[in-house]
Amino acid sequence: MHIVEILGTFSFAVSGTSVAMKKKLDIFGILIISFVTSIGGGTLRDIMLGNTPVAWLRDATTINVILASTIGTVLFGKFISKLNVSLFLFDNLGLGLFTFIGIQKGMDMHFSNGVCVAIGMLSGCFGGVIRDTLLNEIPLVFRKEIYASTCILGGAVYFLLHALKVDNQLSQMIGIAIIVLLRIIVVRFNLSLPNMYKSSN
Amino acid sequence: MHIVEILGTFSFAVSGTSVAMKKKLDIFGILIISFVTSIGGGTLRDIMLGNTPVAWLRDATTINVILASTIGTVLFGKFISKLNVSLFLFDNLGLGLFTFIGIQKGMDMHFSNGVCVAIGMLSGCFGGVIRDTLLNEIPLVFRKEIYASTCILGGAVYFLLHALKVDNQLSQMIGIAIIVLLRIIVVRFNLSLPNMYKSSN
Amino acid sequence: MHIVEILGTFSFAVSGTSVAMKKKLDIFGILIISFVTSIGGGTLRDIMLGNTPVAWLRDATTINVILASTIGTVLFGKFISKLNVSLFLFDNLGLGLFTFIGIQKGMDMHFSNGVCVAIGMLSGCFGGVIRDTLLNEIPLVFRKEIYASTCILGGAVYFLLHALKVDNQLSQMIGIAIIVLLRIIVVRFNLSLPNMYKSSN
Repeated sequence: MHIVEILGTFSFAVSGTSVAMKKKLDIFGILIISFVTSIGGGTLRDIMLGNTPVAWLRDATTINVILASTIGTVLFGKFISKLNVSLFLFDNLGLGLFTFIGIQKGMDMHFSNGVCVAIGMLSGCFGGVIRDTLLNEIPLVFRKEIYASTCILGGAVYFLLHALKVDNQLSQMIGIAIIVLLRIIVVRFNLSLPNMYKSSN
Repeated sequence: MHIVEILGTFSFAVSGTSVAMKKKLDIFGILIISFVTSIGGGTLRDIMLGNTPVAWLRDATTINVILASTIGTVLFGKFISKLNVSLFLFDNLGLGLFTFIGIQKGMDMHFSNGVCVAIGMLSGCFGGVIRDTLLNEIPLVFRKEIYASTCILGGAVYFLLHALKVDNQLSQMIGIAIIVLLRIIVVRFNLSLPNMYKSSN
Repeated sequence: MHIVEILGTFSFAVSGTSVAMKKKLDIFGILIISFVTSIGGGTLRDIMLGNTPVAWLRDATTINVILASTIGTVLFGKFISKLNVSLFLFDNLGLGLFTFIGIQKGMDMHFSNGVCVAIGMLSGCFGGVIRDTLLNEIPLVFRKEIYASTCILGGAVYFLLHALKVDNQLSQMIGIAIIVLLRIIVVRFNLSLPNMYKSSN
C-alpha cells in the first residue's frame, strides 16, 4: 500500500504543477498548488475522521516526493507536455489509488459501504477541488467529464466482489482498474453524464 | 432535536440542488454541492470543536435525506421552482434550526455566550459559504441581504431569555422564530445593513 | 509569546478589514473576512495538528481584539488609509510573528525542521489565502511579491541559529526580523522570484 501512496502522490504532484504552470504562478505558488493537489484530499479525509496530526506531517517521504516531482516537472515541463498521454494515465492511476486508500481507511473504522465509497471519492477528488478553488475556477470535477462517478462505480464493484468473498487485494485491483479504464474510455469517446438541461443559455 | 436536524438537512439540500442546477452542473456536481450545502457548516463546526469522526459519517439518515432531497429536487425541479416561496421558508427554517443546533453544541462544551452564537452562525451559514466558494462566487452571505446577522440576533435574544430563566425549549423556539421572521421581513421589504460607503467607484 | 499573538491578530484584522472594505462588503461581511484573515491560518494549523477545540474558541481575548480592530478600522478607515506604510509594517510583523508561533507549535510536537517551517508558513499565510479565496480572487500569495518565501527563509535561518546553539529567543527575533525586513526590501525594490515563463500569453 505504501508504493501505491507514493505513486499516487507523485502523479498528483505532477498534475498540480502542470495546472499551476498554465496559470503562470511563480515557483512558490506552483509548490503550494502541487502540495494541495497531492495531499488535499487525504488531509481533508484525515481531519474529518479525526486522524490528526495528519500523516504527511510525520512522514518525510510524502513531502520529499512532492518536492522532487514538482521541481522535476518545472525543469522538464516541455518534455513532459509531450507526454500528455502518460500524464493522463498517471492522474487516473492516482485517482484510483487514492480512492482505495480512502475506502480502506473507512473500512478500518467500520463505516458502512456507502460511507466508505464517499470517503474514497473525497480522498481521490478533493485535492483537485481545493486546487481549482484556490485558482479561482469552478472545480473541473463539477464541470466536465465523468470523473468522481468513476470512483463511485469502482468502489461499488469492489464492495460487490467483497460481498462475494473474492480475495481483498484482487478486488481492490479490479476496482482501481475500473476507475482507470473507465476514465480512459470516457475521455477517448468524449462521454458525459446525460444532460438534464433541455436548452442551454 | 433530531427532527429539527432532518428538516434543516432537507431544506439545505433542496436549496443547494437548486443553486447547482442554475449553474448547469451535471448530476454528480449537483449531488456534491447539495451535500456541501447541507453538511458543510456542521462539518466545519465539528472539525473545529474536535468532534471527529464527524457525525454524518456514522449516521446513514443524514446521507439518505440528502440523496432523497437532491434526487427529488432534480426530478421535480420545475414544480418546485413554482414553490419558490415555500423553499425560501424552508431555507430560513434550516438557517434557524442549524444555528440553534450549533449554539447547543457550544453550550455543551461550556463556551461563553458570544462564542456559542459564533458557532451557531458558523453552523447555519458556512455550508452556503463553502457552496458559493466552490461555485466561484463571492458568498451570498457577504454580499446581500441581512443573513448571518439574523443568526446573531436570534442567538442574542435566546441568551437574554436564558439569563431571565425562561424555559430552554421555549427560548430556542423564540430564537428560531426571530431568525425566520426577520429573514422574511428583510427580503419582503428589501432591507440591508446601513451602507457605509458614501460613493461607489 | 502572548503579546506577540495579540499584535499579530490585531495587524491581520486591520489588513483583512481593509481588503473587505475595498470589496464594498457590508459590516457583517467585513467582520467575517477580518476574522478569517486573523484566525484562518492558525485554525487550519490547529485542525491539522489535532489541537481541538481550536484555541480562540476558549480565549475571549482573540475575539475581542478582532472585534475592536475591525470596528476601529471601519470607523477610522480614512485616517488609516493615510497610514498605508504603518499598516504594511504591521502586516509584515503579523506574518513574522504568526510564522514563529507556528514553528514553535511544530517544535513542541517534535516535527522535523522542514515540517516546522511548513507549519509556520501555513500559520502566517493561509489566513490571507482563505480570505482571498472567499473573496473570489486568486490568493495574492500565489500571484505577486515574494511573500511566503520570506517565511521559509526566516524559518531556515532560525533553525540554522538553533543548530549553532544560539539563544532561542534571540534566534526567533532574528527570524522575525528577516521576514519583516525582507518583505520591506522586496516591496521597496519591486522584486519578484525569477520568471520561468519566457513568453506571456
